[in-house]
Amino acid sequence: MGKRIHNFNAGPAALPLQVLEEIGDEFLDYKGSGMSITEVSHRSKWFDDVINEAMERTKRLLGLDDNFQVLFIQGGASLQFCMVPMNLAVAGKPVDYVNTGSWSIKAIKEAEIQGKEVRVIASSKDRDFSYIPRDVEGDPKAGYLHFTSNNTIKGTQWAEFPKSNGVPLVSDMSSDFMSRPIDVNPFGLIYAGAQKNIGPAGTAMVIIRKDMLERVQDNIPTMLKYSTFTEKNSMFNTPSCFVVYTIGLVLKWLEETIGGLGEMGRINREKAKTLYDFIDCSPFYRGTAEPDSRSIMNVTFRLPDEGLEKRFVDEALENDMGGLKGHRSVGGCRASLYNATGMEAVKALVEFMAEFERREG
Amino acid sequence: MGKRIHNFNAGPAALPLQVLEEIGDEFLDYKGSGMSITEVSHRSKWFDDVINEAMERTKRLLGLDDNFQVLFIQGGASLQFCMVPMNLAVAGKPVDYVNTGSWSIKAIKEAEIQGKEVRVIASSKDRDFSYIPRDVEGDPKAGYLHFTSNNTIKGTQWAEFPKSNGVPLVSDMSSDFMSRPIDVNPFGLIYAGAQKNIGPAGTAMVIIRKDMLERVQDNIPTMLKYSTFTEKNSMFNTPSCFVVYTIGLVLKWLEETIGGLGEMGRINREKAKTLYDFIDCSPFYRGTAEPDSRSIMNVTFRLPDEGLEKRFVDEALENDMGGLKGHRSVGGCRASLYNATGMEAVKALVEFMAEFERREG
Repeated sequence: MGKRIHNFNAGPAALPLQVLEEIGDEFLDYKGSGMSITEVSHRSKWFDDVINEAMERTKRLLGLDDNFQVLFIQGGASLQFCMVPMNLAVAGKPVDYVNTGSWSIKAIKEAEIQGKEVRVIASSKDRDFSYIPRDVEGDPKAGYLHFTSNNTIKGTQWAEFPKSNGVPLVSDMSSDFMSRPIDVNPFGLIYAGAQKNIGPAGTAMVIIRKDMLERVQDNIPTMLKYSTFTEKNSMFNTPSCFVVYTIGLVLKWLEETIGGLGEMGRINREKAKTLYDFIDCSPFYRGTAEPDSRSIMNVTFRLPDEGLEKRFVDEALENDMGGLKGHRSVGGCRASLYNATGMEAVKALVEFMAEFERREG
Repeated sequence: MGKRIHNFNAGPAALPLQVLEEIGDEFLDYKGSGMSITEVSHRSKWFDDVINEAMERTKRLLGLDDNFQVLFIQGGASLQFCMVPMNLAVAGKPVDYVNTGSWSIKAIKEAEIQGKEVRVIASSKDRDFSYIPRDVEGDPKAGYLHFTSNNTIKGTQWAEFPKSNGVPLVSDMSSDFMSRPIDVNPFGLIYAGAQKNIGPAGTAMVIIRKDMLERVQDNIPTMLKYSTFTEKNSMFNTPSCFVVYTIGLVLKWLEETIGGLGEMGRINREKAKTLYDFIDCSPFYRGTAEPDSRSIMNVTFRLPDEGLEKRFVDEALENDMGGLKGHRSVGGCRASLYNATGMEAVKALVEFMAEFERREG
């Protein structure tokens, strides 16, 4: 089967090996159809089962009742940055955003392009986005309150979500979606690019609370209206079939092999703790996020200088550990510990980090 | 490797077997990376090579000079229906459309939703879209002239494109893109959902002539501006990596195994001629498109009654020929003969059709 490395990519990222093997095994003949899953009609019984099963598993995993609908929309979280204000802003009401870094800033920009009245009600810009603002609450005068649940670039994450106060919460959960149990009830909308925890790149998953649909205006282009996707079960046009299929297999692994979000959250906390504990005990490595705001998904850290960081990343790759370079906008190092990156990968990384420190520290 | 059927699906559709086998072979370890292509970062050298090679092959296959740029945009042709008028309409000028059926109607609707001044300058609605209007010419007063090059549902296709008269032509080529050589120079923009001739569902390929970019206004949402994709080499955000990768392999097959669009066009004409000749000689089967407007991609036909049509489709599938049911909006039968559906499939179909006719005619 070739070589497999420990994959710490920030996204696209590791997928469970058993999922990749299952795809490979049935790639030329999907369930006796005589076709690859990439060749099957999206209007066929085969694909209907694929998409419906992925939606049902999502509902079970997140504990969604019938007030919520699961959608697949191409274009990633970046297209959601524009669809959210286009669909969910309410005339005469401001839309509120929390700014915790690059992705929040992009979301804010798209609301502004559309001329919405944007209020940034909290921000961590004052300390270079190294923390999550405290005590953020919804203002009932606002149309919605938007925040980024996990910040891949700066390695911060909301441990507790803002208090809604009846204002629909809207969240970009791209990089921690399905990584832990959450209470979905205060959310009007959740969106997540697939390519971190749930599948390959090529679709966003969107969870919409049905009362949000009353806000959708008729003059929005068809492919940008949430109601188009709710009314047509995400098949107004051809969806990203292979990506939806793979997501279905990842969710099956999450539900049946891992045992659900409670267990996944426990494993993810343990993985992150192992790495943070090591970093905290070392004088050589330094975490960049403030301890109470640390992400369990993306562990960002620095070495004493950039030359060492480059050698660290290169030598890690030679030792079959990939994706450890920090985001190009901030430098440094980053280990992304998404669902499919197991404890054995974290242990191998810690061992390598200790060895590198002994040699270079 | 399991069973393989003759696949006449209208899209998602057949892919070349050698492409599927190559994907399967390297699915767990892409080029020694130790990762699946679905796990590789889109910012890596691996994926850079994938997307750049797919773009370069497209330019070579279509004979594009540096006035044109190749883009990958998620959302299929349906999102292009809205992006075209949003980006390319010019203040004070009408936008012209030719109506040759369902897909044209959807494109027209999206221009109207945006309040553009839409003129339908030719239509084949009078005879139920069974033909392509003749002698259509661009009106220099218009911003652009839009047409659907091939109509999957009604089985019609433009043999010769409208005369431009200096007006940029814009075409939805989803269902005959890369099926034959074309002269791209009169086109301001060409778009095509991938899932017919060039790959799996999950992206549109867009060819844009660079002068069109001057039309793009600043107040368009970032992910809906063509300039976002031209400036960032289609990687402002994570593209549909697996789909782009597969497209690259299909284009390699088209260029290196088939020998380019000239040869592909010859093969496609021969496939279609084989099937149409058989239909024309049979009193049992009846083609639905007018002969001079027939599509070489989608051959639509009827049997004497709907009961026979249902049995025909069912028995064909039992004989390992899939996807022969007509579009749900029109009924009847349809054989889609895209690039990857070979002459051997057409011969098998004709043989089955003759046998069915002997038995039931």
